[in-house]
Amino acid sequence: MEEDFKVKYVDVEKIKKDFPILNVKPHGKKLIYLDNAATTQKPIEVIKAMDKYYEELNANVYRSPHYLSALSTQAYEEARERVKKFINAKREESIVFTRNTTESINFIAYSWGMKHINEGDEILLTIAEHHSNILPWQMVAEAKKAGLKYVHLDENFRLSMKDFKEKMSDKVKLVAVQHMSNVLGIINPVEEITHIAHKYGAKVLIDGAQSVPHMPIDVQRIGCDFFAFSGHKMLGPMGIGVLYIKEDLLSDVPPFLRGGEMIDEVFEDRATFAPPPLKFEAGTPNVKGACVLVSAIDYIEKIGLSNIHNHEGELLEYGLQKMKELDFVKLYGPNDAKERGGLISFNVEGVHPHDVATILDEEGIAVRSGHHCCLPLMRYLGVPATVRASFYLYNDFEDIDALVEGLKKVRKWFK
Amino acid sequence: MEEDFKVKYVDVEKIKKDFPILNVKPHGKKLIYLDNAATTQKPIEVIKAMDKYYEELNANVYRSPHYLSALSTQAYEEARERVKKFINAKREESIVFTRNTTESINFIAYSWGMKHINEGDEILLTIAEHHSNILPWQMVAEAKKAGLKYVHLDENFRLSMKDFKEKMSDKVKLVAVQHMSNVLGIINPVEEITHIAHKYGAKVLIDGAQSVPHMPIDVQRIGCDFFAFSGHKMLGPMGIGVLYIKEDLLSDVPPFLRGGEMIDEVFEDRATFAPPPLKFEAGTPNVKGACVLVSAIDYIEKIGLSNIHNHEGELLEYGLQKMKELDFVKLYGPNDAKERGGLISFNVEGVHPHDVATILDEEGIAVRSGHHCCLPLMRYLGVPATVRASFYLYNDFEDIDALVEGLKKVRKWFK
Repeated sequence: MEEDFKVKYVDVEKIKKDFPILNVKPHGKKLIYLDNAATTQKPIEVIKAMDKYYEELNANVYRSPHYLSALSTQAYEEARERVKKFINAKREESIVFTRNTTESINFIAYSWGMKHINEGDEILLTIAEHHSNILPWQMVAEAKKAGLKYVHLDENFRLSMKDFKEKMSDKVKLVAVQHMSNVLGIINPVEEITHIAHKYGAKVLIDGAQSVPHMPIDVQRIGCDFFAFSGHKMLGPMGIGVLYIKEDLLSDVPPFLRGGEMIDEVFEDRATFAPPPLKFEAGTPNVKGACVLVSAIDYIEKIGLSNIHNHEGELLEYGLQKMKELDFVKLYGPNDAKERGGLISFNVEGVHPHDVATILDEEGIAVRSGHHCCLPLMRYLGVPATVRASFYLYNDFEDIDALVEGLKKVRKWFK
Repeated sequence: MEEDFKVKYVDVEKIKKDFPILNVKPHGKKLIYLDNAATTQKPIEVIKAMDKYYEELNANVYRSPHYLSALSTQAYEEARERVKKFINAKREESIVFTRNTTESINFIAYSWGMKHINEGDEILLTIAEHHSNILPWQMVAEAKKAGLKYVHLDENFRLSMKDFKEKMSDKVKLVAVQHMSNVLGIINPVEEITHIAHKYGAKVLIDGAQSVPHMPIDVQRIGCDFFAFSGHKMLGPMGIGVLYIKEDLLSDVPPFLRGGEMIDEVFEDRATFAPPPLKFEAGTPNVKGACVLVSAIDYIEKIGLSNIHNHEGELLEYGLQKMKELDFVKLYGPNDAKERGGLISFNVEGVHPHDVATILDEEGIAVRSGHHCCLPLMRYLGVPATVRASFYLYNDFEDIDALVEGLKKVRKWFK
């Protein structure tokens, strides 16, 4: 590790102690967890919050007038309020709890999309989208005979705003775009995109799965209509996600799942719905998931999202510098660390990504290999798959040194 | 408590100690939790399994070739295998993990229903269905111009098989029926219903939310095509549910949510899907939820589902006997405890159900009041709401004595 690089923004050594799973020894080695874009590990505070929920306040919400139900309902509504503040939404009704980003996007496709996108309309995506922000729109496009277009990248792997502007038109009813790419790390100018799309009367959905855990988010500043993210990628539990619906669209978005607690009246042949957010949450919600997500937000805000973002920026810069020195490694994404989030996609010359990941695993290093649920992007890049190392607040420069050493071993092994 | 009634089937005193939340003192009183049909409490084994998951094996599944991902993928697949055995499904591919019963039913409505139910077809429900087994079918019926019919009850609050047979015809494409009513406690003859429906070529969906936690289930014996249930009503965590799809329908059911890991190939304009069960599970599943559900099943099977069912039967018989002695209480449901599961819906003469529940709450007794997400049933019964006490393996005769004493206080208070 070089002198220039020192942990400046977060106390990684202290943070690591908060994550019990980092004591696991894969194949007898120290665990270097660099698969954070897939899912993140949980601090002891989050684990304890789960226990506390089931030991002290578990009940179904809204339904029953008893002590535990009052406690859990209050905690659930506080979670909604907390998430509202976390992304700076205007109103609590705009916060809908779902399972994950995928469900949030499917929600909008099945409800708003199937109602408002019609024959001849267009849906505009980017070529770097995750399958979860492609397949729901393919479904809508097919059902409604609408068109599907993809904004391409520029020569430096950034979204081409020139191409975006050329593809925008009055035909476009929805722009669905990721905030940060899970392969290239590019951070898209979602504020500008939204501004332009709105001029054409299009709505904008942002897939925030990769951004929310790593940088401060302000949905009002972005101005987007829909915003989706997952709890498990931000230190929170699996099984809880969020869909933000802008306040002026709340009555325009039909319910998605239908069932208990989202109704006003139910007759044999028809039903009327409760006001938002209830009309968007059918059946017993994952109350525990929502309440524990609060603990994850608490933890993140205690460290500070800007600090986390800056820390990852340092890791990225260091990682890019170190990996550029390896002449057998090909990197994907913008050269400039300033334009991207904390992950590096790469390939090792002549070695299949799965073999790279498998050899790294033997050294205790957890990375992901594959198409990262981005097959159109892979085809666009002309590669079948990549290896991806993705960082979070508990990673440090030593982790990257270990990755670099691991890659040298891969090279040696296959040479 | 009378001599006739002794805890015979389960060691309630020992079981109570496994549930930390039972130490909570609502308003300084002992907690008597009788809201189990809404959600159940969690034994320490289940809470510990949650911790263990996040401390020892958390990772995203299927996606990454590293140590933790291998562990979590294996645990997730073992959970599927365990659930398969638990309900005696033929194949693992038939087990789809969802959020809850509501999502499972909506899944079939949006995917199979929107494909296979067409204009002029009929969907046959029962008048006692929960909103989660009504509203999705109203949506399908409206979208496809199909008919919706309801089987009524007989004079003893049981499903009228005569009415069912009269309403069955070649037009009926789906029979969607609850296994056990969350209001009346009636257990429907789902095997016979399925047998008859199949003769007409109709498919059968069973809402097992209220039955799976309380009695042994064998989907092969029932013969149904779809079966839905929730983890949180059977000692398991919130945010995990199950949809069973009969093996010969797996290729006939289109995917519901679309996104990562459920695909084979993705092009810009179209996609092909992975084989089941993957094609039914888009995005990061609630791996932790599935793994912890296994601990809930372990706990339930350690006690024995038949023992639990028999124990609840004793509680019910005792409760019905005691409550019939209260001349100011009106009971709903069959007189014979043998025909029903462990819950009692009732009203106190001249007192609003919410007031009954609130006064009981002051005594530490948690019951639910309201329409129980069954408005068509409420209208059919001619009552706006009821109070419901629902039992589980940690309830005993003293809990029912406390309920009866509480009701006497309600009477005194309002007389």
